[in-house]
Amino acid sequence: MTISPFDSKLYRSLFGDEEIAGLFSNQTFLASLVKVEIALAKAEAAVGLIPENAAEQIILGLNHFIPDPENLGKRIGDYGVVVPAFLEKAREALVEEAQQYLHWGATSQDVVDTALILRLAEGLPILESRLRATTSRLDSLAEEHVESIMPARTRTQQATPTTFGYKAYQWGVPLKRHIKRLNELKPRLLVVSLGGASGTLAALGEKADEVKKGMAERLQLSATESTWHTQRDNLVEFAGWLSMVAGGLGKMGQDLLLMAQSEVDEVRFKNGGGSSTMPQKSNPVIAETLVTLSRFSAGLLGCIHQAQIQEHERGGPGWMLEWLVLPQMVMATGVALHNTKRMLDDLIVNSDRMRYHLDQSNGLSLAEAAVFALSEHMPKTDAQLLVKHACQKSRRTNVHIIEILSKQVNHPIDWRHLQDPRNHVGVAAEKTKKL
Amino acid sequence: MTISPFDSKLYRSLFGDEEIAGLFSNQTFLASLVKVEIALAKAEAAVGLIPENAAEQIILGLNHFIPDPENLGKRIGDYGVVVPAFLEKAREALVEEAQQYLHWGATSQDVVDTALILRLAEGLPILESRLRATTSRLDSLAEEHVESIMPARTRTQQATPTTFGYKAYQWGVPLKRHIKRLNELKPRLLVVSLGGASGTLAALGEKADEVKKGMAERLQLSATESTWHTQRDNLVEFAGWLSMVAGGLGKMGQDLLLMAQSEVDEVRFKNGGGSSTMPQKSNPVIAETLVTLSRFSAGLLGCIHQAQIQEHERGGPGWMLEWLVLPQMVMATGVALHNTKRMLDDLIVNSDRMRYHLDQSNGLSLAEAAVFALSEHMPKTDAQLLVKHACQKSRRTNVHIIEILSKQVNHPIDWRHLQDPRNHVGVAAEKTKKL
Amino acid sequence: MTISPFDSKLYRSLFGDEEIAGLFSNQTFLASLVKVEIALAKAEAAVGLIPENAAEQIILGLNHFIPDPENLGKRIGDYGVVVPAFLEKAREALVEEAQQYLHWGATSQDVVDTALILRLAEGLPILESRLRATTSRLDSLAEEHVESIMPARTRTQQATPTTFGYKAYQWGVPLKRHIKRLNELKPRLLVVSLGGASGTLAALGEKADEVKKGMAERLQLSATESTWHTQRDNLVEFAGWLSMVAGGLGKMGQDLLLMAQSEVDEVRFKNGGGSSTMPQKSNPVIAETLVTLSRFSAGLLGCIHQAQIQEHERGGPGWMLEWLVLPQMVMATGVALHNTKRMLDDLIVNSDRMRYHLDQSNGLSLAEAAVFALSEHMPKTDAQLLVKHACQKSRRTNVHIIEILSKQVNHPIDWRHLQDPRNHVGVAAEKTKKL
Amino acid sequence: MTISPFDSKLYRSLFGDEEIAGLFSNQTFLASLVKVEIALAKAEAAVGLIPENAAEQIILGLNHFIPDPENLGKRIGDYGVVVPAFLEKAREALVEEAQQYLHWGATSQDVVDTALILRLAEGLPILESRLRATTSRLDSLAEEHVESIMPARTRTQQATPTTFGYKAYQWGVPLKRHIKRLNELKPRLLVVSLGGASGTLAALGEKADEVKKGMAERLQLSATESTWHTQRDNLVEFAGWLSMVAGGLGKMGQDLLLMAQSEVDEVRFKNGGGSSTMPQKSNPVIAETLVTLSRFSAGLLGCIHQAQIQEHERGGPGWMLEWLVLPQMVMATGVALHNTKRMLDDLIVNSDRMRYHLDQSNGLSLAEAAVFALSEHMPKTDAQLLVKHACQKSRRTNVHIIEILSKQVNHPIDWRHLQDPRNHVGVAAEKTKKL
Repeated sequence: MTISPFDSKLYRSLFGDEEIAGLFSNQTFLASLVKVEIALAKAEAAVGLIPENAAEQIILGLNHFIPDPENLGKRIGDYGVVVPAFLEKAREALVEEAQQYLHWGATSQDVVDTALILRLAEGLPILESRLRATTSRLDSLAEEHVESIMPARTRTQQATPTTFGYKAYQWGVPLKRHIKRLNELKPRLLVVSLGGASGTLAALGEKADEVKKGMAERLQLSATESTWHTQRDNLVEFAGWLSMVAGGLGKMGQDLLLMAQSEVDEVRFKNGGGSSTMPQKSNPVIAETLVTLSRFSAGLLGCIHQAQIQEHERGGPGWMLEWLVLPQMVMATGVALHNTKRMLDDLIVNSDRMRYHLDQSNGLSLAEAAVFALSEHMPKTDAQLLVKHACQKSRRTNVHIIEILSKQVNHPIDWRHLQDPRNHVGVAAEKTKKL
Repeated sequence: MTISPFDSKLYRSLFGDEEIAGLFSNQTFLASLVKVEIALAKAEAAVGLIPENAAEQIILGLNHFIPDPENLGKRIGDYGVVVPAFLEKAREALVEEAQQYLHWGATSQDVVDTALILRLAEGLPILESRLRATTSRLDSLAEEHVESIMPARTRTQQATPTTFGYKAYQWGVPLKRHIKRLNELKPRLLVVSLGGASGTLAALGEKADEVKKGMAERLQLSATESTWHTQRDNLVEFAGWLSMVAGGLGKMGQDLLLMAQSEVDEVRFKNGGGSSTMPQKSNPVIAETLVTLSRFSAGLLGCIHQAQIQEHERGGPGWMLEWLVLPQMVMATGVALHNTKRMLDDLIVNSDRMRYHLDQSNGLSLAEAAVFALSEHMPKTDAQLLVKHACQKSRRTNVHIIEILSKQVNHPIDWRHLQDPRNHVGVAAEKTKKL
Repeated sequence: MTISPFDSKLYRSLFGDEEIAGLFSNQTFLASLVKVEIALAKAEAAVGLIPENAAEQIILGLNHFIPDPENLGKRIGDYGVVVPAFLEKAREALVEEAQQYLHWGATSQDVVDTALILRLAEGLPILESRLRATTSRLDSLAEEHVESIMPARTRTQQATPTTFGYKAYQWGVPLKRHIKRLNELKPRLLVVSLGGASGTLAALGEKADEVKKGMAERLQLSATESTWHTQRDNLVEFAGWLSMVAGGLGKMGQDLLLMAQSEVDEVRFKNGGGSSTMPQKSNPVIAETLVTLSRFSAGLLGCIHQAQIQEHERGGPGWMLEWLVLPQMVMATGVALHNTKRMLDDLIVNSDRMRYHLDQSNGLSLAEAAVFALSEHMPKTDAQLLVKHACQKSRRTNVHIIEILSKQVNHPIDWRHLQDPRNHVGVAAEKTKKL
Repeated sequence: MTISPFDSKLYRSLFGDEEIAGLFSNQTFLASLVKVEIALAKAEAAVGLIPENAAEQIILGLNHFIPDPENLGKRIGDYGVVVPAFLEKAREALVEEAQQYLHWGATSQDVVDTALILRLAEGLPILESRLRATTSRLDSLAEEHVESIMPARTRTQQATPTTFGYKAYQWGVPLKRHIKRLNELKPRLLVVSLGGASGTLAALGEKADEVKKGMAERLQLSATESTWHTQRDNLVEFAGWLSMVAGGLGKMGQDLLLMAQSEVDEVRFKNGGGSSTMPQKSNPVIAETLVTLSRFSAGLLGCIHQAQIQEHERGGPGWMLEWLVLPQMVMATGVALHNTKRMLDDLIVNSDRMRYHLDQSNGLSLAEAAVFALSEHMPKTDAQLLVKHACQKSRRTNVHIIEILSKQVNHPIDWRHLQDPRNHVGVAAEKTKKL
């Protein structure tokens, strides 16, 4: 079965990410169920809810226990969740007197949700370190290209000069904010779930909170004051973060795609995708995946927010909707970060071509600068009109607008300085020098 | 890798569907690429574009050819699409003189899109026959329950009497329309893709249209007049159909979930899911999956509609977005239909309880009928006021509203007839008798 | 209140559409409620359910009746729907003996849904005629530009030659399919709603179906066999159609935006949007709105499909979700069609620039043609390698690939013919000549 | 035009919110553009970029300036943004020598984005105070109902006992987290936009950063280090927050809807919506709107995340997509909070009915408690089997499971204590006592 390209060996070099995918394998999932049950048993033994010996037997019996997914799979349709079948098999691996103490007072959702969080806890440092590597690579790129002057484009049209360095720096700015956001949401996300049958932890009696805290500590997670069985804000908040990261990368991918168009040709990619019929082609497929993954993430985010409406103390439809959506969202962002590295590694920047585009337009992108230069000698509104006409004339006659203006205006303006786009990049150079 | 529960053995009895999943396995995908290339070669040989002998060698060499997905997978990241690597391997399986004639004049997207359509063509009869089985099962249920009287509910409140038979019949009505819709869209969906490098079929010269038709015939598909490389309306129309089917089933699942609530208890399910901590539980997990799958499909539909904006003659990001979304949508609807059968097979209808709910409310759901009966003797607006007060009194005193009214009104009304909800089900009984 | 730009006078020349907006004004909404009640009364009188005279009084009293929205608005929060408050006011406009016969046996949703359909019935011809005008304009454009040769682009890269005429023709192809789709879905969409309190039409007795048909006829709508109070497939199917139309226009807008980029400059727009600071700017804002509206429609489509899950016989949350979504979707597509006309009217095509891009690339887009020409003299795989090397050499040396190849190959090839891109547009010219 | 119910007087008592709607009126929008231009002028005068006198004249001339939206509206289609037409009118309101200094060095997007942020800054305290009022109301409800025992429901089935107080408390828990989240995101959201034509602030020279900070201070906003013209993470983060709040309220609305079902009847609403044909109806329409608004918000969130991919230095389609989506999202959450207050004010809790449901089920919800009580005398697995059989027998015989068990088991168990559900609410009572 390879319904999702994320699960297909065929697509692994396009949409693959072994590290992230590893978190969601059946093996890892089942192993994390084991971890949760062991932590629960330890915490319960510590407060005397179950015998110390039972906890020891549970650790002993389950430490290397991974049931066969195929086998368990037959039973999940009966329960709607993996845990009951998992417990049956797990109990078989225990000495009889310990069997009853396994999963003492917990409910299936406690174990499944905590097992998800455990794997997310493993995934976050991977995502964070990739984010850091990306911003660091972008900052280097920014420094390298502090002088690579190029046209800024607004609404697809050349606007004023900027630098490729500033562009690269700007791509990194939201990513840096995402690292901050991740650290803010982390304590809300990395929480143990222990609510028992209905969120009241009735079966644990007065030790309930103590057990929850003990379990959380053992799993290096936090504990919330109440249960989050049907409070899914931690998950949707994280999903939103994933889609924000994918969106930031998608924006970068889109920009590079636009710059890689044949007619623009400001960047190329070393290992661009070939064509089955056109020998000349070198397709920017990796940059394209960033746009794909961002749009996919946005769609899935809308979907998982629908899952917030979970009924009463534990809901089925919304909870299962998360299973269909969240792992794909983690994977999409993981792959997007992975592919970003690859895209940047393959990037060939053609700064001559960037400069050419500025020159080619006969100074159209200096229009604003010209207005401000002229404004020192006449009202800005007059300057604007003058420059607008010069732009129109330039388009007709193919003459540089600064040349046109210099013939029309007698004020003492340093035309040479004005004509050099390097003098009009504003904060672009300065902001990227000091990185 | 099991990022998607659809791809996980663990979830196969909850979200599994071997028939549909089979269509999207790597094996089937690669086998359908082979079919497309063979049909193309045959069509080209038939019009003399490539030698007859080359086509024969291609058939001979590829008929049983399935490359190793793992091996191909390494190369897809270079090309962004499986075809070039697939062709390399396929050519190795051919005698040298035939190699060049493989994939003659086609582009990767032609082959990938046609291979998708081929598998959808296999999937449609599966979906259609499941739809027919569902409507037929619902019609039987309707006939069985032509007399199972129950409260209709509007905006969660008891409204007037209806029958469970009519309810079941109504669930089937949109499904019948979906069968009609499927047959309308089928000719638009089941079309060959052959546009060549840029949709102009330049490499096929004057035989272009003839080859396209020949290829279509051989694959039992139709041919569109122009290329659909970046015209994805056939796919999004189909995706919309899938989400409509899932929506219809989701609505049925939702209704049954509401009826299965402990406090309502009008239906149960034979194999309801157990709980890991509560011995009494029998969870309606299969009905829940229908809601889950419908909401998932709705979310993905919004996502694939974003993929309509594909750039110029062939676009990357939108095309790849389809790969991430469409197979999941087919699977979601396939599983929803599969689970619907299971849910209906497991359904235990408690018609006594349905009747109890009508009786229990002291005739509140007969309020409208009472108004119309009284209206024969007084203005309806007066009747409405009278009945409204009777309802309020009934709530306070726990007396049946018809009893209250019969004491307040002297007109010759057949109170016994009025009090029997079976006389107030409108078209419900009649519509379901004749099924 | 102008929460939506569609409702704001400020945005009327960007997102305005008086014809479509008119359908959703409070005035039109209330007027269509009146029409529905009158048709119901007529149909009921015709079968003797209510007195002839009552129907006449209802027509007389309501024909010019439009209540004050502000006034009604105060009460909708109590009822959750406009009808009860509307009926109160409407009854005040009637002679006393007719009051009770107004809305006889119908429920609020019958009236609100039918009133929606009535307005959609007015909207469809508007949308269809705009679609026809668009395809006709595109076909003219195609004919005008049958010889405007340009590079096709696949995955942002120049691929093979095509014509702008073919491009324009291709934009129209899905739109033509949408007209066909509209006519298929129309009979499913334009249906009266008459189900009574719970879809059983209990209050209408044996005349129920006759009344429904009579009402439908009077409103020039069809009647479905059962009620569609919670079967919303007709609405979501239409919503899907709207998003498909918007998607087709969005794709065209996107292509034109790409062609209008400063560096590509193959098209401009007469009335491009100016800038508040850059005198040279002419922003392609109308083309941009097409992309915006398509992405908006896709998002809303995912949202309205969620509304398919409506509970039991009539559901509240899903029904109200439709109110928030569907008018915006009709408007989005209406505006998209309106803006498309404006965009095409303003379009200035620069076919010299298109040709320049082909020439500029030193024949890279002739690579496929070269391969096929060489293949007449050598195996295609050899030809491909040869051409690939020529492409690389061309990039390095800035020499035309056909020149390079002509020096490397001695076979009798008509190099002049090969070098002229007009000979390699495949079906492009032919398909657009005959429009 | 009332395309959106948010903009319709007809729906104001269902989907209205004057405070929030006021933020998005054309008047407020235009007034906030004025504020931004004045703050810019002041900041520029402070560093000597424009004459002090010009700034004074700008303040003087614009302080009470609000142009006619209708009039401006004609021009927006030309510019794609309101600012150029706004500036024309604004300049007419200024003495000639000040005209040129208005909007000095800024671009349209700077002004529009900052004007948005200004209005969001006004909106946040409204939303926050409503959130606080809601959690406070919920905490009171929790305290009031510390002893209102009721069945918890998991996957629609009665699970174990809980209290209505704990349920109310739990609804508030995520809302409290949302207040914390709001305060974390606030500094990222409430930022001035000043990037100039292309984000480089070229026209402001070396004073660029100083002007930005000065402008920010004057508007009580923060300044980001770089421009956010195409970095929309602050807006999508906020949109995610809005949808999380709506989701939390939607979950509460859904729970109350389920409890308000006729057959459950644990809560009613004072001013439930009437029916146009059924005198007995009292529809929970306000609770329904919470579900509607949450699903609407989720859909729009997926849509606005698509807008993250904005091209180069300023993009059109994505930016305009925000205009179509974000105000609706703020409004949806505003209305949801507003309607929540109304719903809670109207709430009538029937705690007898809650208790009845516990008793009615013959102790099924005590099954877990029974298991744990028995486990003190036998292995838990044996206890589970015993209780499971008791549950089945109870269903058949209509006898309380504790009675059944007490006859089967001889161990010294306090059956009376076990049979009282108040002894099995776990942390429910304790957590809500201390609020």
